Amino acid sequence: METFGIGIAGLGVVGSGVAKNLVKNAELITQRTGFKFEIKAAALRDPALAHGIVDPSKVKLTTNSMELANDPSIHIIVELMGGTDAPRTLIQESLKNGKAVVTANKALLAECGEELTALAAHHRKPFGFEASVAGGIPVLKALREGLVANNILSIHGIVNGTCNYILSQIAQTGSTYGAALAEAQKLGFAEADPTLDVEGFDAMHKTVVLAALAHGFWIPQEMVHVQGISKLASEDFAFAKMLGYTIKLIATVKSHPDGAVEAHVQPTFVPNRHVLASVSSSFNALAIKGDVVGETLFYGRGAGSDPTASAVIADIVDAAAALSGGHAPHLGATHSLYAKIKPYEETMAPYYIRLGALDKPGTLATIAQVFAAHQIGISSVFQPKDHPGDFVPLILLCDTAPERDVRLALAGIAGLGVVNGPATAIRLEEFAP
Amino acid sequence: METFGIGIAGLGVVGSGVAKNLVKNAELITQRTGFKFEIKAAALRDPALAHGIVDPSKVKLTTNSMELANDPSIHIIVELMGGTDAPRTLIQESLKNGKAVVTANKALLAECGEELTALAAHHRKPFGFEASVAGGIPVLKALREGLVANNILSIHGIVNGTCNYILSQIAQTGSTYGAALAEAQKLGFAEADPTLDVEGFDAMHKTVVLAALAHGFWIPQEMVHVQGISKLASEDFAFAKMLGYTIKLIATVKSHPDGAVEAHVQPTFVPNRHVLASVSSSFNALAIKGDVVGETLFYGRGAGSDPTASAVIADIVDAAAALSGGHAPHLGATHSLYAKIKPYEETMAPYYIRLGALDKPGTLATIAQVFAAHQIGISSVFQPKDHPGDFVPLILLCDTAPERDVRLALAGIAGLGVVNGPATAIRLEEFAP
Repeated sequence: METFGIGIAGLGVVGSGVAKNLVKNAELITQRTGFKFEIKAAALRDPALAHGIVDPSKVKLTTNSMELANDPSIHIIVELMGGTDAPRTLIQESLKNGKAVVTANKALLAECGEELTALAAHHRKPFGFEASVAGGIPVLKALREGLVANNILSIHGIVNGTCNYILSQIAQTGSTYGAALAEAQKLGFAEADPTLDVEGFDAMHKTVVLAALAHGFWIPQEMVHVQGISKLASEDFAFAKMLGYTIKLIATVKSHPDGAVEAHVQPTFVPNRHVLASVSSSFNALAIKGDVVGETLFYGRGAGSDPTASAVIADIVDAAAALSGGHAPHLGATHSLYAKIKPYEETMAPYYIRLGALDKPGTLATIAQVFAAHQIGISSVFQPKDHPGDFVPLILLCDTAPERDVRLALAGIAGLGVVNGPATAIRLEEFAP
Repeated sequence: METFGIGIAGLGVVGSGVAKNLVKNAELITQRTGFKFEIKAAALRDPALAHGIVDPSKVKLTTNSMELANDPSIHIIVELMGGTDAPRTLIQESLKNGKAVVTANKALLAECGEELTALAAHHRKPFGFEASVAGGIPVLKALREGLVANNILSIHGIVNGTCNYILSQIAQTGSTYGAALAEAQKLGFAEADPTLDVEGFDAMHKTVVLAALAHGFWIPQEMVHVQGISKLASEDFAFAKMLGYTIKLIATVKSHPDGAVEAHVQPTFVPNRHVLASVSSSFNALAIKGDVVGETLFYGRGAGSDPTASAVIADIVDAAAALSGGHAPHLGATHSLYAKIKPYEETMAPYYIRLGALDKPGTLATIAQVFAAHQIGISSVFQPKDHPGDFVPLILLCDTAPERDVRLALAGIAGLGVVNGPATAIRLEEFAP
């Protein structure tokens, strides 16, 4: 029986879940793996708050997380502090000192993933971050190991539970964005300052991690196009419903035959026939398409104390197995098969477009001519009847076209005096076979 | 760069997919893992059929699979022969000779899984069988590793693509069982002799494997209750639809607080609001509930040359990593936390029941009294109007009750002269939170 010492930096929502479940299911985990895990030390801002989470007679408490990196009784460091500077230093020192590291810190990975995975590879030490994307769903393991035989053609993920809760509420109850956000905050699905979630930055961090595991290189986060959900208009939810779609915040990673990779996050019309459309509340799901396996989908809770702890503990066990065998697991090593990033403006998609159009014969012809001039096909036009006034909503579904061309066409239309303001353009993802 | 020699026994649908994709994605796999794989030998009944699948100038062809077990250039044996006797001997000899083994053979695992996993553990050699359940979906890896922190509370799986294709066709087009089966055979989704699939035996084999990984012991296959789809009546599909359900062949593994495990396969009413209801055609999906992670779901292609090859190659890579590190991965080792099997008659479920009932006042009271006498609650009664005759269909939805009590109640009713034949009873799975 091998015993591994664990040091946990951060005993908040996730850290306390890890401590609780490591103890609760200790016998099961040991019987399954042959390993025993002992929490040797925990670092937290106020050691008094550790009461009831870990046993202070067995677990050394400290306010200085760097003590964990230098504690010889600790084999595996679990970084759950939040922020980026202190975690980065802790992880660097821990790897240098020969310890395995597990983290759930997607913001850190999006910023320093390349450096930290290279450092782990250099020291041949396990570095796990399953909990950084989609909480309890073992989707990074699937990308890294289960689908290792595949060129990953596409990933479409609902990876932010806060946004998905808000979008589901609006779609299902007709509530406003503000009311749905307030409800999410009340239920603990959204932070007091929800910016990181609702503006798409958290999903962007996860997109960087997904792309790295799928394609072997770390996309600089500033090259991932991000659009959040806070500016969606309620009428677009109604039109989506009418047309058979559901609006979801989708993190997309797609590879192209020339090795280019596109990665972006934005509200997207998902057809109701696709499983992703039915992923509601704070659940996460990822549709992953590989050139060998075809379509797969992974679904579960993307956040919360217990689901995230499930992923952290799985990484702890994998780290122990690797330390025990004296080898680091394949980390989805960086490689050069893909390394080009497709600029967002060159990425292609069909679009839902809503214009406030002058209610006069000839308006549609004027608008259609601009799309035609940009080689953009229009597959449907839809004009709701019950909007009296000089300007009425005009819905167009455009065929697949580069983002740049759609943007240019809409800018062209804006100058012709037949619309009353900027158009709304939302991507469609048809999940064609 | 470490190179591993591969020996493939069986170059049929799956074997040829493995050979093709190992070559096609060789560079990607090597960049990701640091390992190179070379097919050294292949065993097949007629070596002439290897033409176009492997390069005979590099791959030794033999009709005797045991030659692979004794070939020192081979490190990993891939068993894809079918049958049980020859594969069993091949796997035994290969493990004894220090080779890792990968197989997709669920019938063999259901019969000899305990013996073969024990032998692999004894020799400390990797033994992978990801492809034996749900083809390309990395669900065994999820159970073994990704969800290692969890008591697995339940698994509900659509694990047989043939049955799911047939059931989807009947539900969506109103076709008969016979026509749907013929269509499945034409499309290659069903064998000429479909017994193994449509009578539920293939799903039962997979249930044994799922239960072993979830609960640490191998349930003797004769203790898994099996009911296939060939005797379902078309009217039950219509009633299911009317009531908001879809009939699926569900493989169930559930654990109970006392350590007892139930495992069975039968047609089941799945509520349309649950994702499993929307899994159509030959796709597979498994809903897995853990005590830490909560609800998860895994979806993808459960069969076919490429999807199955995706899983086999993932096992090959894992085997190489373990051989390289000199340690066997944790195999979902057998343990004693669970070891009791709950007899089918004691398992509990709500039921859909259809009776041909005498169209006369008092019939329902007579029937209801029998259910009451067995302490079985009735939550809904439903009598379609358009069935003239002395006997009319009577649909009851019963509350959760032991299978034995439901069976006894129906036997009691059969003797009272108010029904015209044996009742149809189909389990409901409500997926309560």
